[in-house]
Amino acid sequence: MTTNEDLDRILTAAAGVPLTGPHSAPADVRAGWLEAVADVLDAAAGELIELAGQESHLPAGRLTSELKRTTFQARLFATALREGGISPVQVDTPVAGWGSGPRPDLRRTLVPLGPVLVFAASNFPFAFSVFGGDTVSALAAGCPVVVKAHPGHPELSRRTAELVSGALPVPGLFALIEGVEPSLTALRDPRIKAVGFTGSTAGGRALYDIAVNRPEPIPFYGELGSVNPVVVTPEGWAERGGEITAGWLESLLMGSGQFCTNPGVVFVPDAAAFLDGIELVTPGQMLNPAIEQGFGKTTTTMAGLPGVHEAGTGPENGQGVRAMLFRTTLADLADDARALDLEMFGPAGLVVEYDDAGALIELLASVPGQLTGTVHGTADGAEPVAGEAVTALSARAGRVLYNQWPTGVSVTSAQQHGGPYPATTSPLTTSVGLAAIERFRRPVAFQGMPDGLLPPELRRERPASSSPGGAL
Amino acid sequence: MTTNEDLDRILTAAAGVPLTGPHSAPADVRAGWLEAVADVLDAAAGELIELAGQESHLPAGRLTSELKRTTFQARLFATALREGGISPVQVDTPVAGWGSGPRPDLRRTLVPLGPVLVFAASNFPFAFSVFGGDTVSALAAGCPVVVKAHPGHPELSRRTAELVSGALPVPGLFALIEGVEPSLTALRDPRIKAVGFTGSTAGGRALYDIAVNRPEPIPFYGELGSVNPVVVTPEGWAERGGEITAGWLESLLMGSGQFCTNPGVVFVPDAAAFLDGIELVTPGQMLNPAIEQGFGKTTTTMAGLPGVHEAGTGPENGQGVRAMLFRTTLADLADDARALDLEMFGPAGLVVEYDDAGALIELLASVPGQLTGTVHGTADGAEPVAGEAVTALSARAGRVLYNQWPTGVSVTSAQQHGGPYPATTSPLTTSVGLAAIERFRRPVAFQGMPDGLLPPELRRERPASSSPGGAL
Repeated sequence: MTTNEDLDRILTAAAGVPLTGPHSAPADVRAGWLEAVADVLDAAAGELIELAGQESHLPAGRLTSELKRTTFQARLFATALREGGISPVQVDTPVAGWGSGPRPDLRRTLVPLGPVLVFAASNFPFAFSVFGGDTVSALAAGCPVVVKAHPGHPELSRRTAELVSGALPVPGLFALIEGVEPSLTALRDPRIKAVGFTGSTAGGRALYDIAVNRPEPIPFYGELGSVNPVVVTPEGWAERGGEITAGWLESLLMGSGQFCTNPGVVFVPDAAAFLDGIELVTPGQMLNPAIEQGFGKTTTTMAGLPGVHEAGTGPENGQGVRAMLFRTTLADLADDARALDLEMFGPAGLVVEYDDAGALIELLASVPGQLTGTVHGTADGAEPVAGEAVTALSARAGRVLYNQWPTGVSVTSAQQHGGPYPATTSPLTTSVGLAAIERFRRPVAFQGMPDGLLPPELRRERPASSSPGGAL
Repeated sequence: MTTNEDLDRILTAAAGVPLTGPHSAPADVRAGWLEAVADVLDAAAGELIELAGQESHLPAGRLTSELKRTTFQARLFATALREGGISPVQVDTPVAGWGSGPRPDLRRTLVPLGPVLVFAASNFPFAFSVFGGDTVSALAAGCPVVVKAHPGHPELSRRTAELVSGALPVPGLFALIEGVEPSLTALRDPRIKAVGFTGSTAGGRALYDIAVNRPEPIPFYGELGSVNPVVVTPEGWAERGGEITAGWLESLLMGSGQFCTNPGVVFVPDAAAFLDGIELVTPGQMLNPAIEQGFGKTTTTMAGLPGVHEAGTGPENGQGVRAMLFRTTLADLADDARALDLEMFGPAGLVVEYDDAGALIELLASVPGQLTGTVHGTADGAEPVAGEAVTALSARAGRVLYNQWPTGVSVTSAQQHGGPYPATTSPLTTSVGLAAIERFRRPVAFQGMPDGLLPPELRRERPASSSPGGAL
């Protein structure tokens, strides 16, 4: 556990990293940071994947592709930083006859918020952990990062942090802390200016409450729970019934269901037909005892909800965990919608039979905020329920898919991994993709500023070099 | 006061406005809303300015230019909506060999958050009131708006609301409510999805606390207090001393100092020289009794702070209000910095003498968050303290000016009217300028979606008309 003295030293160093002016790091220097870390992590892949396997029980194939995705993500940010596309500036030159009075010379850029506290997740020991999306996007923005290690993979966290620190040339730019109490102390410390979190709704909300109730409240970017509803249209079912069931099961049970985009609820026109002949695979060992216990608890709760019935269990995995299906009807959910609030983080799903498309759309319009919503229908979606479901889900989710599955979140420019509360605490932002950088910087406008005092990217005469201001 | 029944009817209607899908309003329809309202307000200018003058005690010339600015702002948003520049979309086409796994077709657009509650301000009865920047930017985003009238100008608020409602063709899109209790009920209502506020730090923080502690927390965009520090460099003072003092006084006392960008604190190399020969003008009648009392209280507090001395008072305005100046030194502020937290909303300012530029920069780096920071120096700012002050202030403010004054916030693309807490509760956003729209919409990504189900702006084949989807 991190001592108070160590934490204070870490926060002092983080707060000492210059955020503005000639000693702050320009975009290409920040790109270099990310590339340097990506290189050392790739070079240590064998060692890291072995450690990750021991601590997370995830198979080597999955971990190999996850590490690849993690370093790809860092290099994608680096490329975008060098190209300038994710650091937009806005320049308004003077206009004497402007409608709100003479327009001054106004030039807006973005500056880092300051030190960011990142709570690592357990289910992606690379992609959402020490050097995951929150860390990378905060560093890309120019913010120092303090990562709270997830206790599910302590050795991997320490070794990753050692490699990250070794690759970063700026004191204070990165540190790892361990332990709940030190992380809460950091969360309350005025030197911390923003928080990234991926985890449970209850845990995330508790931390969010601390962040927003500080004397100086700070942005809390929490990616919490989601049941990721799927709608199968009657026409889609008629065309591709078996394929849809198989695709759902694969997405649902992938990684033993331990994904935040796990499609936990599927609305189908005929539950018996949908469930016919399903064989559930044996899940792997769960990530850690807390998740295993949580899975047992939520599936027990689900089984006890009025109108919910068990619809199949698979073989036991040697630690007492089985894949499970439940079923209910739209009419039962209309009486008691708690099943739609219940994320069973693990290999379990709920099949909801609907016969009234209008009632289905009405229910979808009022589901809790979701990371994703999915519609499976005909190729062109001409059946009215397809379009109505897309409209309803796009009002309640951050990403809406058609004839695809939500697990496997691509790291791209257009990606939106977010959604209305409780899917996230910050629906205007994404925690995956290049737009994730927007969470960690704020606009500053310079008015009437002589060239010599402007940040390089705002100068009237852009210097030949793209990074003239960097002293780091 | 708005009754519970009226409020419920208003919120139900607001929640019924479609946010997504073919029945939601496309950008050019929203542009039409704003233009229609601007037209009716301009047509009623004579009547509105007379009402505003009676209730706010502001002179007709000021109110005329404020109304002009208000309708200009609405038309500027309308133009930007038609041109598409403020509604960015992002399209990622499929790439099989993408580094995080095969990249799907992902298209991201922005959808309205839902009904927005706007708390009107008293000091701009047009520009920050019923049809002010918050209302206009929320409507531009497609959000229904419920405005809580400021009690400082009730008749003007009602008449403006009547005109706005009459010009908007969509039921539920706009409503006015009156009274503190109804506004708190609305703030807690799950149908309200975001809040805009301009006012005092204490009042704003109390409302913010409610918004973020709801079962479903919502974004609270509060523009609170700021003392807007100004730094005069020794070299700047030597070149333009008298001009700087005169400019500061004009900005400080404009509108009897009742502006959030009022430059309340000025750091000068020689306080006696800066204050020499100053004559303070008679302030106008204050906006309302609450502001008048607050001014009396904060100036009394200021006078009682250790190391702070009165440095001049002007003639009394007939209601007991006089312009006031105070002075202190950097050394005194280093012992007790409370004077930097104290916004005296009215015709008063604090002159701080500094002799150690290094100590000045250190103090600036730790001032509370500000809307603006200003430096007055030589034309090119070559003296080191100018650049160091700009660097320090840009880490603590949303807008940094050079040889200009912060009052008079231009409505433009690059404007940033915001800043770290306590200047605002949401430092990543602006409440003035076109970027203010970003506060009221969230990204949604569509994955693998057939053209017919995509929002028009994301379709592969863009239709000939720019607004094919609008049924409103």
